[in-house]
Amino acid sequence: MSRTFKLTIAYDGTDYAGWQVQPQGPTIQSMLERAFVNIVKEPVMVTGSGRTDSGVHAIAQVGSCTLPHWRSSAAALGAALNTQLPPDIVITQCVDAPDAFHAIRDCIGKRYRYQLQVGGVRGVFDFRYRWHIKYPINIERMQQAASVLIGEYDFACFQAAGSDRKTTVRTVRDCVVVVDSPGPSDGLGITIEVEANGFLYNMVRNIVGTLVDVGRGKEDIAWLQKVLASRDRTLAGPTAPPHGLFLLRADYAPFGDLENPTE
Amino acid sequence: MSRTFKLTIAYDGTDYAGWQVQPQGPTIQSMLERAFVNIVKEPVMVTGSGRTDSGVHAIAQVGSCTLPHWRSSAAALGAALNTQLPPDIVITQCVDAPDAFHAIRDCIGKRYRYQLQVGGVRGVFDFRYRWHIKYPINIERMQQAASVLIGEYDFACFQAAGSDRKTTVRTVRDCVVVVDSPGPSDGLGITIEVEANGFLYNMVRNIVGTLVDVGRGKEDIAWLQKVLASRDRTLAGPTAPPHGLFLLRADYAPFGDLENPTE
Repeated sequence: MSRTFKLTIAYDGTDYAGWQVQPQGPTIQSMLERAFVNIVKEPVMVTGSGRTDSGVHAIAQVGSCTLPHWRSSAAALGAALNTQLPPDIVITQCVDAPDAFHAIRDCIGKRYRYQLQVGGVRGVFDFRYRWHIKYPINIERMQQAASVLIGEYDFACFQAAGSDRKTTVRTVRDCVVVVDSPGPSDGLGITIEVEANGFLYNMVRNIVGTLVDVGRGKEDIAWLQKVLASRDRTLAGPTAPPHGLFLLRADYAPFGDLENPTE
Repeated sequence: MSRTFKLTIAYDGTDYAGWQVQPQGPTIQSMLERAFVNIVKEPVMVTGSGRTDSGVHAIAQVGSCTLPHWRSSAAALGAALNTQLPPDIVITQCVDAPDAFHAIRDCIGKRYRYQLQVGGVRGVFDFRYRWHIKYPINIERMQQAASVLIGEYDFACFQAAGSDRKTTVRTVRDCVVVVDSPGPSDGLGITIEVEANGFLYNMVRNIVGTLVDVGRGKEDIAWLQKVLASRDRTLAGPTAPPHGLFLLRADYAPFGDLENPTE
């Protein structure tokens, strides 16, 4: 009898071409699927809550998969997979899920973190995890700008060109900028977190680039409000680099609330 | 007129064959010397306070070097070198030093840090920086054992086989075990720091392996005292892996106290 699992996965994305299987180099998904083949001796498709780009990290990405004949516990499956995964990818939790569970379709929200280092000497232990910017930043301005983005809006101005989502309206539930002072190597560490019911392609990195433009004084809050209203990607700030970005959480309703057509 | 500099250097040792120039792969010293050639257009020898092994990191290694014709500030030299160094090596400080300054000969003490993760799922963001051990550890036992090592002793039992130091007597000024709780990915983070007037080859990693043997209950304090008295490397615990080790500081007398024959 087949069983469906919910996997929680952490990874350092530095050495991968993103989440999704790609011809150009190894991906998180391809490493997971290779680990599954080694354990269950047949191909298994792992669906992620969403793609992450090349170089983006995850503290708790969620995946779903269905295995035809697994007889041990879900935890034993997670442990077995970990023996087959490289040190920069790990299953932090593996639980049984209803047959209907699907990591993309059932996802009701996500939270991302973006890490910056402002000024100071670049940190040799976190250059993989922080965008190092050299100009000074006004935190209060960034915090004010972040609060402008909370709410239900058409976020088309933050969507990468060429995307084809049906709607670009999303609800940003939280958008905060905090100092994780004093930061690495005498610079100032800044963390930005954004939570929403869904994200457009490159939305967080475009928000971060835009908040930084406000924080450095290049633009102001009135400009940000105009950009948001314009729905025009060319007016917003630059796309922040991928290596500062972490998928922090993908949220789901409790399993009892999922439709489960096989029961 | 030639000038001597004191460099403070941080590095992630993961991708290097240690400090010292080696035929097998790039080293910290070789990367620094290459950066110097790019800046001053002639070979420069950089002396480190001591070698670090392949995979060992530094938060503040100290180096000395002498340049025949540098006319800008010492800080400008550090900044110029940083433009030529990879992201995992950085000069955090560069200051003028007396002509007689020599990073090995003048070093009066060092402090090392060693990081452990005990239990939990392995951390994907610090597998380069922590030794992950899976058995439980009694912290109080480790702390007791660490305090046994403080003082002036013959530490031959912790010296790698084949070393040829004149004397194996050293003064350990501090040896502490602290919990940096709750630690990564639900494990327990433990930091061990050891400070001494000088270290034998592999001494910190051998101390860590020995303290872990006590902490896990394999050995006790009386055993540790016997090992220390024996001066026999074969009796002590295993050598901890290099990737948990950081050179935290190398200490020097204030420059006014250095002999300076050219003044």
